[in-house]
Amino acid sequence: MAKDFPTREENYSQWYNDLVIKADLAENSAVRGCMIIKPYGYAIWEKIQSALDKMFKDTGHSNAYFPLFIPKSFFSKEASHVEGFAKECAVVTHYRLKNSPDGKGVIVDEDAKLEEELIIRPTSETIIWDAYKNWIKSYRDLPILINQWANVVRWEMRTRLFLRTTEFLWQEGHTAHATRDEALKEAETMLNVYADFAENWMALPVLKGTKSPAERFAGALETYAIESLMQDGKALQTGTSHFLGQNFAKAFDVKFLNKENQLDYVWATSWGVSTRLMGALIMAHSDDNGLVLPPKLAPIQVVIVPVFKSEEQRSMITKKVQPLIKGLQKLGISVKYDDRDTHKPGWKFSEYEFKGVPVRITIGPRDIEQGTVEVARRDTLEKETFQLTDIENKIAHLLDQIQKNLYVKAISFRENNTTNVDSYDEFKRILDEKGGFLYAHWDGTPESEERIKEETKATIRVIPLNSTQEKGKCIYTGRPSNQRVVFARAY
Amino acid sequence: MAKDFPTREENYSQWYNDLVIKADLAENSAVRGCMIIKPYGYAIWEKIQSALDKMFKDTGHSNAYFPLFIPKSFFSKEASHVEGFAKECAVVTHYRLKNSPDGKGVIVDEDAKLEEELIIRPTSETIIWDAYKNWIKSYRDLPILINQWANVVRWEMRTRLFLRTTEFLWQEGHTAHATRDEALKEAETMLNVYADFAENWMALPVLKGTKSPAERFAGALETYAIESLMQDGKALQTGTSHFLGQNFAKAFDVKFLNKENQLDYVWATSWGVSTRLMGALIMAHSDDNGLVLPPKLAPIQVVIVPVFKSEEQRSMITKKVQPLIKGLQKLGISVKYDDRDTHKPGWKFSEYEFKGVPVRITIGPRDIEQGTVEVARRDTLEKETFQLTDIENKIAHLLDQIQKNLYVKAISFRENNTTNVDSYDEFKRILDEKGGFLYAHWDGTPESEERIKEETKATIRVIPLNSTQEKGKCIYTGRPSNQRVVFARAY
Repeated sequence: MAKDFPTREENYSQWYNDLVIKADLAENSAVRGCMIIKPYGYAIWEKIQSALDKMFKDTGHSNAYFPLFIPKSFFSKEASHVEGFAKECAVVTHYRLKNSPDGKGVIVDEDAKLEEELIIRPTSETIIWDAYKNWIKSYRDLPILINQWANVVRWEMRTRLFLRTTEFLWQEGHTAHATRDEALKEAETMLNVYADFAENWMALPVLKGTKSPAERFAGALETYAIESLMQDGKALQTGTSHFLGQNFAKAFDVKFLNKENQLDYVWATSWGVSTRLMGALIMAHSDDNGLVLPPKLAPIQVVIVPVFKSEEQRSMITKKVQPLIKGLQKLGISVKYDDRDTHKPGWKFSEYEFKGVPVRITIGPRDIEQGTVEVARRDTLEKETFQLTDIENKIAHLLDQIQKNLYVKAISFRENNTTNVDSYDEFKRILDEKGGFLYAHWDGTPESEERIKEETKATIRVIPLNSTQEKGKCIYTGRPSNQRVVFARAY
Repeated sequence: MAKDFPTREENYSQWYNDLVIKADLAENSAVRGCMIIKPYGYAIWEKIQSALDKMFKDTGHSNAYFPLFIPKSFFSKEASHVEGFAKECAVVTHYRLKNSPDGKGVIVDEDAKLEEELIIRPTSETIIWDAYKNWIKSYRDLPILINQWANVVRWEMRTRLFLRTTEFLWQEGHTAHATRDEALKEAETMLNVYADFAENWMALPVLKGTKSPAERFAGALETYAIESLMQDGKALQTGTSHFLGQNFAKAFDVKFLNKENQLDYVWATSWGVSTRLMGALIMAHSDDNGLVLPPKLAPIQVVIVPVFKSEEQRSMITKKVQPLIKGLQKLGISVKYDDRDTHKPGWKFSEYEFKGVPVRITIGPRDIEQGTVEVARRDTLEKETFQLTDIENKIAHLLDQIQKNLYVKAISFRENNTTNVDSYDEFKRILDEKGGFLYAHWDGTPESEERIKEETKATIRVIPLNSTQEKGKCIYTGRPSNQRVVFARAY
């Protein structure tokens, strides 16, 4: 199966789209901006979900479910939230259809108009804090540590599979705390959970930091984010965690009796990652031969392809590989044995290569005689001959190696594409020639941030956490600055 | 914590509602008819999901995700489907809000009106078959065995937590097959999966059968269902599996080249269970002391309550129970150790009893001396003294026993509430006096079914599979019948 698609060099954007569609990860649907996540893509998302869900539970969180609909008036309650969110969204105005008078199809029944329109959630702070109002009376009811796996809708004008879609899947954590410090700590804890997941599961190095005020979540006092670098030198925000202060508690009047028996507003955080992670995963590691998946998130970790010329050979090989399959499964490794006779081995090789299966084992009659197999790894495309004896542990070790190698490769790519720049000319030149992360001094004002964005399309991705303080001058205004921030063009 | 709520005898309906709310399973939200599933309730749903998901995968299905929105015109494509589904549903007409001129809040932006309205999916046959059209060219592309976990919306006028809500969570399987027989077999396989799950996980006996034509899913040629009996003598449909024939393939023009190289329409099934299962689970086993949960679906299977009078005693007990906790966890048993000093043991006993925790272990200083603990089981409320030695296996065995006992109890309840009736007078009398499942002869016409429903509110729940053929007379018309069908009043 020759997958006809451009190289990254030729057309990075087309390369990405073709990869997503031809590898059966997702496709556009009949509804503008909404995608269909196909089984192979969804299997990766399930692995992402399962790993994150365990991390959330290990840090004390529980799952719950809140309504899809938000009454329109809720959005007006938190002033900056409405500015940021309530504009481009799907509005439900009616609750019934009826047969059209011409007998052709159905029309909206104007008699079934809602008194108050309902908004499809673009995020759930408002509906959740409206509920928390009834749940929280005293400090004994705190903290509330809840997460929700859900679909959300933001009416995006320009959409791209996984990266920006009108409907997408995500998780949103919404926590309530008795003190400012505890809420701040929670926001940071969850940023670290995201960073841990990105680095150890997705093999994706991340920069941790805070967002500039202009890039903050609508309604947050502080937004923490992780940022990753894609192979075209553009940044992708892969997760955010917000310290919301008492803004939503004030908007929804959520007070509690503290330990000193005084009424106070509750402190809040929210944090989320979405199917956008799929886009990051695909773009970070894949190459001109197709997908490259880190073993920890690959739906199929090992594929075994028998090479046979007769039914007799096929059944001999099939028999021989059974202990290998069972042995790998015993180690928790997912294996596919593809002995179809409708496709040639060469077709299968390129198919599984294209689909990013980390390890391929090929076995033919001569291998059986010699007690060996051929093992090919997807990340380096290298092949090696393994003895069949005790091969399971070697394969497990190889999968570990591949996982680590992908991370090291991505770190090294990021290092090669990170530049300290000290003048605006250099800034613009590096952006155009190379892209990547640019560490530069900034005077801290929204005005210069905005002008840089207008003139170069680069934004401040993060103000790095725990970075070294360093005196310098803003590349745009020359005004003094104490710390470099990270600029990039971004998805 | 005294839970003040009526007994089943006093007010079954209020008993159910209070149980759901006071046991922190779910509550009504600010949006009419939409519920909030709280962490304790959601933890049960997660266990249901996880068990079912494994059963779906073990029978060859994969998960995927299709859009929330369905273009209005899609509903008109399958004639009977639109009659059954497209009427009471949420309609998205606009995609933007704007600040209201008076500066107070937001209003719908009339300039952002959709050309074609979007319906929030009440079920996804139409949007999925529109996609399948592009996926299926030849018999080699078949079967497609896909399941989706999703939220759906049906604009219900009268709602009840879990049993009937405007938005609910469910899974919907949508499969495509090359032959009629294969699709029929799939519909039956999934009915059996549902029955297996209900009986072995929910401890809920079910009747398997087909629906009468009047009760069929809109667009199906045959609807298979499982039906259970609740403690008030009413039936609850707990799962359905539909043989859709070629109806959706014809409506969406999905043809394939069969093995004989001829174009044919694809055969379809769909099948689903929803958060309604939560309602069945709660109603089937719980009693006047609160929830009773089958161990296999209980978020906490064992709670350990220490009885102490001093900090010294508490830490001695805490130390002593560590090996017990670890031992139980090793057997895959979920344990909660509640050593809070803010609540008395008696409060905790009734709290966990109310929440349906299957096994409670109490341990005090005297127990420590004697090497024993007190073990209370939720289903029978019996207490027993266990030696601490090798207690883990005994607890595991006890959990099994409780699981089985709940099923046996429910079977016996159903047997006591199942009646063969041979006249319409007897039918009406039994319905009013006792309720339950009534096996009666029916002439097979929609007219008598409809009249019986109008006059008695009883409907045909199922035409049992593999039931013995028996000559008889329709209780309503006296016309001949070959088989008894199952009537009941239902949720």
